[in-house]
Formats: sequence, structure tokens, C-alpha cells
Amino acid sequence: MKTKKPHLLGVPLEYQLDQAGEQSPPTALEKELMRLILKGLGDPAIGVTLWDGEPLSPTQKGPTMVVRERAALWRLLTHPTLHFGDDYSTGRIEIEGGLLAFLGRAYDAFYSRPKSVVALQRIADAYRRVRGNPLDQARDNIHHHYDIGNDFYRLWLDEDMVYTCAYFAPGVETLEAAQEAKMEHVCRKLRLTRGETVVEAGCGWGSLARYMARHYGVKVRAFNISHEQIAYARDRAKAEGLDGLVEYVEDDYRNISRNISRNIGRDRYDVFVSVGMLEHVGVKHYRELGAIINNTLKPDGRGLIHTIGQNQPIGTNAWVYQRIFPGGYTPTLREMMDIFEPYDLSVLDVENLRLHYARTLEHWQQRFENQLDTVRAMYDESFVRAWRLYLVGSIVNFTGGYLQLFQVLFSRPRANTLPVTRDDIYRRDDDESV
Amino acid sequence: MKTKKPHLLGVPLEYQLDQAGEQSPPTALEKELMRLILKGLGDPAIGVTLWDGEPLSPTQKGPTMVVRERAALWRLLTHPTLHFGDDYSTGRIEIEGGLLAFLGRAYDAFYSRPKSVVALQRIADAYRRVRGNPLDQARDNIHHHYDIGNDFYRLWLDEDMVYTCAYFAPGVETLEAAQEAKMEHVCRKLRLTRGETVVEAGCGWGSLARYMARHYGVKVRAFNISHEQIAYARDRAKAEGLDGLVEYVEDDYRNISRNISRNIGRDRYDVFVSVGMLEHVGVKHYRELGAIINNTLKPDGRGLIHTIGQNQPIGTNAWVYQRIFPGGYTPTLREMMDIFEPYDLSVLDVENLRLHYARTLEHWQQRFENQLDTVRAMYDESFVRAWRLYLVGSIVNFTGGYLQLFQVLFSRPRANTLPVTRDDIYRRDDDESV
Repeated sequence: MKTKKPHLLGVPLEYQLDQAGEQSPPTALEKELMRLILKGLGDPAIGVTLWDGEPLSPTQKGPTMVVRERAALWRLLTHPTLHFGDDYSTGRIEIEGGLLAFLGRAYDAFYSRPKSVVALQRIADAYRRVRGNPLDQARDNIHHHYDIGNDFYRLWLDEDMVYTCAYFAPGVETLEAAQEAKMEHVCRKLRLTRGETVVEAGCGWGSLARYMARHYGVKVRAFNISHEQIAYARDRAKAEGLDGLVEYVEDDYRNISRNISRNIGRDRYDVFVSVGMLEHVGVKHYRELGAIINNTLKPDGRGLIHTIGQNQPIGTNAWVYQRIFPGGYTPTLREMMDIFEPYDLSVLDVENLRLHYARTLEHWQQRFENQLDTVRAMYDESFVRAWRLYLVGSIVNFTGGYLQLFQVLFSRPRANTLPVTRDDIYRRDDDESV
Repeated sequence: MKTKKPHLLGVPLEYQLDQAGEQSPPTALEKELMRLILKGLGDPAIGVTLWDGEPLSPTQKGPTMVVRERAALWRLLTHPTLHFGDDYSTGRIEIEGGLLAFLGRAYDAFYSRPKSVVALQRIADAYRRVRGNPLDQARDNIHHHYDIGNDFYRLWLDEDMVYTCAYFAPGVETLEAAQEAKMEHVCRKLRLTRGETVVEAGCGWGSLARYMARHYGVKVRAFNISHEQIAYARDRAKAEGLDGLVEYVEDDYRNISRNISRNIGRDRYDVFVSVGMLEHVGVKHYRELGAIINNTLKPDGRGLIHTIGQNQPIGTNAWVYQRIFPGGYTPTLREMMDIFEPYDLSVLDVENLRLHYARTLEHWQQRFENQLDTVRAMYDESFVRAWRLYLVGSIVNFTGGYLQLFQVLFSRPRANTLPVTRDDIYRRDDDESV
């Protein structure tokens, strides 16, 4: 067990030091400001109780935000999405009546705001979106999230440590089965055959690479810049006797092509696959990613990118961007075309698995809550609350249709020997293709 | 049988009048110009024989273009793709060694041209692409192609008169079965249920509307501006006892929303469907199409657009644009997002059926060739040759990966009751959903 880590998600120190003394009741101005904040957020159907314990509106009902400190109200005024997250994490804001219901109503109102309010928001969003992630920053960003510690993720992920959207195929109920079904779904879409070579960009704890090697007999080189994840993946591949087929490379995906030229004898790959990495790439690097794919694939090669996406190019929620996924951005399909179009790669199949991610997150949150005692022994309460907000907020986003999950299958333009229908992906028997 | 129609596809009169007299042999300059033309086309692996019967290169082999008249060579110099089509149609250019093989090599070279040549081409292409089709022009364009005469299309289409890409599901071999499989595939993707309402934009001879009504018990309003097609569709629906469920409207798709407000009691539709119309819409009208869909669909509505597409935004082949499909343009997926993104419509599923169109066209061409005697009794030889060039050229485009066929399924962003996997689309039993 690790030592208890405070402030792990980067909540600024002043939040921790800002001890509430005796507070005078909210002024008429402060109540008016609170109403203004709600208006800016699209007037969600929620209640608000300020630090005097009185409801802001005498008729309010449903889930309620309790603002426990004066300073929290004033912070909400400057940047509500960011500071709501931080003040919820530190307990200066509490939610009564259910976090899921509260966030559901908040998001529904937020995305129905008048266009004038939205336009202002987009200017700020644009900055985050186009900034992208230079190499060094990318390492910091990934370290921030994925190196929290394998021990933590092990508490609430499935046994294969798959930290991406699962696939609830018909009859699949458990998280373990759904993660395996996802890996199988990806392999079937890619039409892997024994002896082929696969390069994986952003391999997490390495589960997909091992699954491909074990069930399809392919050779996989899997890239990841998270040190803790790579170490775990290597250990596990060795323990499972797969280290002859799977090679984990602790390096940035942008160095895949560099590695190719060093790698005499198997210069190019049959298959490129990336599950849950594009969210960290940044739109301005998509052409570069396309170039890497183009330089990596054989003339009849194919690939799949699995990513959180959205219908419209809206910047990542400020709190998620600052505290959970620095540098994160979830693209639209239009934005994703920057990867394929410049290199004449054919999009064969796009599938939107949005509601599978809502269900995956429900499993994760349930497991997380079941492990609270252990989590609390590792991290302080602000971490626990931040993580809960992140998981529940994500459920709300996928259920409400504010986030999508795209699997995009592509190939070289003249890959004419692939199956021409998707029937083989959906065959019901349990035959493996090897 | 109709009277024989010359010049039907609009080959200018001077081509017909330009009778070849005694021709002096090609000059050294003309031979050099011919080599220059080939270079501009990417130096395809073809032979050329000029009007003196001599090969241009002593080492040439494979499929050969025979330029029978001096004037044809000079025309090739000004606009090779346009004039090749016209001079092939009128027989001033002949192909020896197989039209399919010839066009295959020509396209492969054309799309591998140096970037400098391509850049020049794109400037000209851009004009056609952005021009779009105002209402009146749209009617002329559609009349040009689809009102050639039902008698002509009946000769070589399937018995249901489906003039779009078929779907060769596993075990399906005949064109008839593949067209039915396509309609079934579309209905399954749309998850039609009895009693729902469907609006169809661009219904051709009305086969899909009748199929939906017959097999899924839905009510369909189908729009088309081709007078001959609508008349045929109405007759057939009546004969098949489907006129209670299917209504064919001779009007532009842009008037769908107008018709909604008139139509008391069923203001909005459960489903929007459009198969093979987007090619005639023009990119600059995509947002407008999206607005129509947005104004047309119920809050839990969904839709499907089936269209020829491409990987990169390249203008339609000049001859096809001038003679076959005036105003035609085949969009990239990125361009198609103009339909969905502004209205927060979720893309659920994209399927690329490119090779199904190659196979559909092979069936059409075979049937066309089998009916040559009848076609020749209706139209002159330049029409016959033009139509063959169009069909064979299209086969080459789809086989070579220069054209795609996209089926894009979409829904309102919170259509949370649709099936979350595609297994139901691929169920093997023969149960109908009604």
C-alpha cells in the first residue's frame, strides 16, 4: 500500500488552506450573483442552498447544490465548470439528491444554452482545442493520469486492466466479459490472420496486444509512454508466455515510423490499431498521425482507431481538462478525417458505441464505490470525490449524447481482398479465426 | 418503342458534322503533342495508335487507344478527360485490347500523377464542386439523366428498377436478389417498426418506399423531381396495392419541410432516408439538407443517407459531369459532416460498400450489352458507346478505390432506445420484423 497522496489531481494549494471561519449570511448581491451563474449555465432544473442553509428559491426541488463557503460562490462566478469540480472535490460544494441526477440536469441545461452564451464559451474552448500536445508536454500529461498507480486502477478496472470502453455484445453482462468482447470485436473488424504484424499506438496496460497474440497468433509491437503501464504489460506478457509475440515499447507513438527503419526484415505492418489514445493527441497532430500510419502500413494494410468523440467541436470540460486529462480533446468525425484524407486512406466502417461507454463507466463507478475503504487508505478525500465526479460526469456525458465513442476502421484504398460485408464480424458460433 | 434519339447525352453538334476526309499522316509535332498529353495523364501503361495506323512507340503493348482523326488529337490537348469521352462516344477514338483494362490503367496512372499536375487540375475541379445546383438547374440536371426513358432503364436494371448500389449479402448472386438485399439492409439499419412514418428524399422509381411499406408496414412519403420516375412509381404502388401506405410526391427534397406544415396530424417523421440522391445535391447545399432533416425528424428520429463518395475532394470527371450527371459531385465523409454537425445529429454507423457497386455495375453492363440490339433501335451508336464508357468507367473507379459508397446511419443525439449493437442487422434467420 502506498503512502497517502494529497492533492494528487492538482487542486491548487490555496483551496486546501482556505479554512472557513465564521461566515456572515449571503448578501442580496451574492444571491443575485448565484442566480446569474445559473443563468449562464442555462438555468438547470436544480436547487441551490447557500452557506446559511436557506434555499435560493423558495420553490426549488430536485437535486440541490449546497455551496458551503462564500469563497466558493465567488469562484463559480469566474469559471463555473472548473471551480465547481474543484470545490466539489474539496467538499466546499456538496450535492444532495444524487450526483448523477444533478449532473444530468446540469448538462442538459448547459447544452441547451442560448447561442449567445455558447459563442462566448467557444472562444475559450478553441484555445484548448488547437493547442495540441508537444512531445514533452505529452509525457507530463500521460504521467499525470496513467501513473497515478497501477494499484489504484487495479481496484476498479477488470482483471485485464482495460481502461477503455467495453463492448456489451448480446448476452454479455459482466465487465470482464464486455472487455474481452471489445477486444474480440476489434480483432474481428481488423480481420487478423495468424502471422500478421500489428503496431499498436497507446497500449495502456497491454491487454489488447496480448489478446491479439493469444487468440489470433499475430506479432504485436505496442507503444506507450506511461512507464508504469509498460512495466506492468511486460511482466504480464512474460508471465503468460506471450513475450515472443508481443513487444512493448516505452516510446511515443510519433516514433513508430522511426522504429520501423531500424527494424530490418519487417519494415511495415499489416495492421495499425489504437484504442483510447486519440483523446490525448490533439487535433493539430492528426495529420502527423496520418503520416505515421501511412508510413507504417503495408500496401494492403488496414487499421482501427477507437476514440471518444463528439458531434460538434466543443472544448473539453475545463475541470476535466485541468485536473483529469490535461491536453485531452475528443474529436468530431470531421476532425478525425485529418488523419485519413491527406493519405487517401479509405474509411470502411464507423461504429458509434456511446451507450457501451455509459455502461462501462457504471461498472467502474460501482467497483470504485465498493473499494472506497482501500482508496481512502491510499488517497485523501478530495481525490476520492474528484474521481467520483469524473466517473459520474462521464456517465452523464455518454448517456446524454454529449460524448460519442467512435471505432473507425480503415484500409489502403485498394485493399480489395477484405470481406465485403460485416457478416463475419457478427457470426454467432464460438469459432476463433485461428 | 420510341423514335431513335441522336445526340441524347449532349455531344455538341460539331462533333457529328466533323466528317473526316482524306487525312495526311501525323506530323512529328503531333506525335510529340500526343506524348505530352500522355505525360499530363500520368504516363499510363497503354499504347497509342494514330490515324496513320502506326504505333506511337515501337515498344508499346497492352490496351491501345486508336486516335482515328487529327481533330481528336488536338481536342485531347485542350481537355483530355472531357474530349476522350466525347470522341470515344462518336467513334473518333477507339480502344483495342479491352475498355476495362484500358480505363483501369488510365485511372491508375491519372491518380498517381505528380503533385504539380494534380494541383492545376484541382483549381478547375473546385469550380464544379462548389457551384451546387439551384432549384431550376436541379430539375434540368435530373431530367437530363433520369428522363432518358423508363423503357431504356428497364432493359438493363433489375425488375424493381433500382438504380443504386446493390448489396451482395453472403450467398446472394443475382442482381435482383442483391437489390432486394440492399433494401432489406437499409431497413434493418433503420430499425423500422410497423406504423412508423418515413420520408424519402430522391426515390428513383420508388422501389425502396414500396419495399418498406410491404415488408415493414411503415407509411412512406417519397420525393422525386423526375416526372417519368414518379409516374412509374405511382402506377406500380397502385398495382401492388401499396398506394395506401406509399405516397409519391413530384417535388424537390427541399420542399419536404414545407409539406410537413401542410400535413396536419403527422407533422414529423420517425425516419429520413435518401439513397443515391446526395450525388446530385452539391456540397454547398449540405447544411440546407441537414436543416431539412432537422426540421423533419421527430425527437427520437433517425435516418440513413446512401451515396457515392470519395476519399479526397476531387471534382467529378469532366466528361461524366458534362454528359452523364450534370451537377454531380461525390462527397468525402468530411464534406458529408456539413449535413449532421450543425444540427447535433449523431452518426451511428458508416459502412463503405465500394466493391458492391463495382459488382452491381458489372451486372448492369452485362445486361446492357445483352440488350444492344434493342438499345440500338432506340438510340444512335454514340449513345450506346457513351453509356458503355460510363458503365465501364464506373466499374474501374469503384474497383480501383477512386470512388466509395457510403451508407451513413444517424439519429437524434439522445435516441437511447435503439439497439446498441449491430447484431440484429446480421441475424441469419429469415424472420421479418413485422
